[in-house]
Amino acid sequence: MTTTDPSTRNGVDTATLFATLDAVKAAPEAARFQFRASNEWLSGTHSRSTIDGFFGVGEDRQHARTFHFDADHPAILVGHDNGPTPVEFVLHALATCLTAGLANIAAARGIRLTAVTSTVTGDIDLNGILGLNPAVRNGYEKITVRFTVKGDAPAEKLRALVEQSRARSAVYDILTAQVPVAIEVTTD
Amino acid sequence: MTTTDPSTRNGVDTATLFATLDAVKAAPEAARFQFRASNEWLSGTHSRSTIDGFFGVGEDRQHARTFHFDADHPAILVGHDNGPTPVEFVLHALATCLTAGLANIAAARGIRLTAVTSTVTGDIDLNGILGLNPAVRNGYEKITVRFTVKGDAPAEKLRALVEQSRARSAVYDILTAQVPVAIEVTTD
Repeated sequence: MTTTDPSTRNGVDTATLFATLDAVKAAPEAARFQFRASNEWLSGTHSRSTIDGFFGVGEDRQHARTFHFDADHPAILVGHDNGPTPVEFVLHALATCLTAGLANIAAARGIRLTAVTSTVTGDIDLNGILGLNPAVRNGYEKITVRFTVKGDAPAEKLRALVEQSRARSAVYDILTAQVPVAIEVTTD
Repeated sequence: MTTTDPSTRNGVDTATLFATLDAVKAAPEAARFQFRASNEWLSGTHSRSTIDGFFGVGEDRQHARTFHFDADHPAILVGHDNGPTPVEFVLHALATCLTAGLANIAAARGIRLTAVTSTVTGDIDLNGILGLNPAVRNGYEKITVRFTVKGDAPAEKLRALVEQSRARSAVYDILTAQVPVAIEVTTD
């Protein structure tokens, strides 16, 4: 990556990153965020979500643009493949969370990255969600992430970036620990 | 929803749905799936995932098309807002999973749905991922799903659809129970 601003490394504005950390240290309430998605059922297993607003640093905010994402089941799972399955979006969320953290941590540590790629696989036995075997869970039995990380640092320092990103990853925590989920229903 | 095929309800081909259940009952191994996403870091907190192939019913398969999704942080979190945050994709995954299940279950129960919408919110204290307070977890503290379900059935039967979808949701299980996540790193 070519940069002209010495405070930018790996595309991370490290001066702003450290200023943000200092600001939150001074006012911890600024770090209370609420993220949101709204969804509309279209037909069968096909639905569409909209992501635009969130709350953070004391006020409601908007993304630079409104994002829309479809999800569906493939034909073999009685859908029409208008989008990935919901569980594939979970793998995407994990990959992107770990990768964003890795780039930030590398920038903070003065390591220039040249390439970061990953593949994430999730093994699932659909006997669970199909209700055919009560001993089988509904969700993934296991998830495996395989990173390839290249940059201007010894292998051990590059591996340590992944480990620190894991230790500070929101999505890794969401998947490996338990999140309370409340569901409310209105019918009129 | 207008249909000409009496076996299709809510856009769900119920004949195929029941045939699929029977096929998996006869050959439980067919239900072993592996879903996959690959990801490439672009710059800063911006990366892009590709979702195309998966394994299921005994062989590797392809989606009808290749899907690409970007994730990033918004400017206030030192990114460039090239996509939603990873944690917003988690909310999308939950909404779409519960909604797909709801439509399938309604079809199986002979209930015609007319509208299903939902909003999902996730509360997170970024003091966790910023490493500023070890007592704060990295992930969501809580997630709340608010459904509005309309269809040709009494309110209690519509509510029961949501409850059964929750009880059979892969993503709900992934978020509320623990999934083992293994991370491997290559540096050359």
